[in-house]
Amino acid sequence: MSYYAAPIAKLIEAFAKLPGIGNKTAQRLAFHLLDVSDKEAEDLACAIINAKKSIKYCKICCNITDRDKCNVCSDPKRDESIICVVEDPRDVVAMERIREFKGVYHVLHGAISPMDSIGPDDIKIRELLNRIREGKVAEIILATNPNIEGEATAMYISKILKPLGVKTTRIAHGVPVGGDLEYTDEITLMKALENRREI
Amino acid sequence: MSYYAAPIAKLIEAFAKLPGIGNKTAQRLAFHLLDVSDKEAEDLACAIINAKKSIKYCKICCNITDRDKCNVCSDPKRDESIICVVEDPRDVVAMERIREFKGVYHVLHGAISPMDSIGPDDIKIRELLNRIREGKVAEIILATNPNIEGEATAMYISKILKPLGVKTTRIAHGVPVGGDLEYTDEITLMKALENRREI
Repeated sequence: MSYYAAPIAKLIEAFAKLPGIGNKTAQRLAFHLLDVSDKEAEDLACAIINAKKSIKYCKICCNITDRDKCNVCSDPKRDESIICVVEDPRDVVAMERIREFKGVYHVLHGAISPMDSIGPDDIKIRELLNRIREGKVAEIILATNPNIEGEATAMYISKILKPLGVKTTRIAHGVPVGGDLEYTDEITLMKALENRREI
Repeated sequence: MSYYAAPIAKLIEAFAKLPGIGNKTAQRLAFHLLDVSDKEAEDLACAIINAKKSIKYCKICCNITDRDKCNVCSDPKRDESIICVVEDPRDVVAMERIREFKGVYHVLHGAISPMDSIGPDDIKIRELLNRIREGKVAEIILATNPNIEGEATAMYISKILKPLGVKTTRIAHGVPVGGDLEYTDEITLMKALENRREI
């Protein structure tokens, strides 16, 4: 027998399915929602339904958006000839935060990972090629994550782009700003040394 | 300008209002919900709405339930003459887990706390007195939390129960089982010494 009334038990269970939410936290969240105003609880429920219903992929860059074209792709001030390729919509937000990049994005929604049986056809590489074939692209910046899957994806994309004659670059690896040499792993340090430049 | 499409930004904001959920976690939860099936997201939203709509107080013990009487109060095997007084519905669950207590509960929904301007009339003490006046109660076990507010509440209730001639007990304070004397605070240790018993 569950100690909680059914609706509470169900709510706790639903919360506990979320990533990083254990049983105790799920309980706390459920009881918090019982305490708050009806409106606040409804706001959360509606936000879930709404986001789920209205979010789709931008028809150009595959970023998530609630319209046909995402904020970046529909901004006439952005330079469409430079495409920054990222794995995830959250990476777009990370790039946007630097307020420096004036090009546009392409979101792959994943990285090539044979271990998880994710191949090139399972991510949005075909869509990227279609954009390039339209002929307006001058540079592709590969900003996939600096891990095995991200590197493999960057490598794969750079290889298939070579015959198309598009300039392809990879974001720099090195010591993070504000970091500490002592705590930097060997491979990062090696990359930082390799990519040293004259000042 | 928010970097996220409006429905996502709203969902992140709604999650971030929950206790213990910061902005980063709210982001992770929101993106997780975009990834899962429509059904799973809907389940969470419905669970919130449902719990909010159907949960009310048991008309006898003030525990939360989706019916008129909670599971415990509607169980004919429970001994109605022993009432365990707790602060919160979660405390009922904690007590039920020991599978030992065969009496019934009374949930105060809080504790007396002048600092937060919560007085005796703000918690369910009146309802407790009404139950006692019905005359079937043999013992009141005060199981409020072992902190200042809980002690004050237990003290207050025991005082108003004295003229009614009901046996009133307080749960024991002492060293927790599996605990370590070295790490036990002085007051707990003092209580454990005070309440020592012959073996």
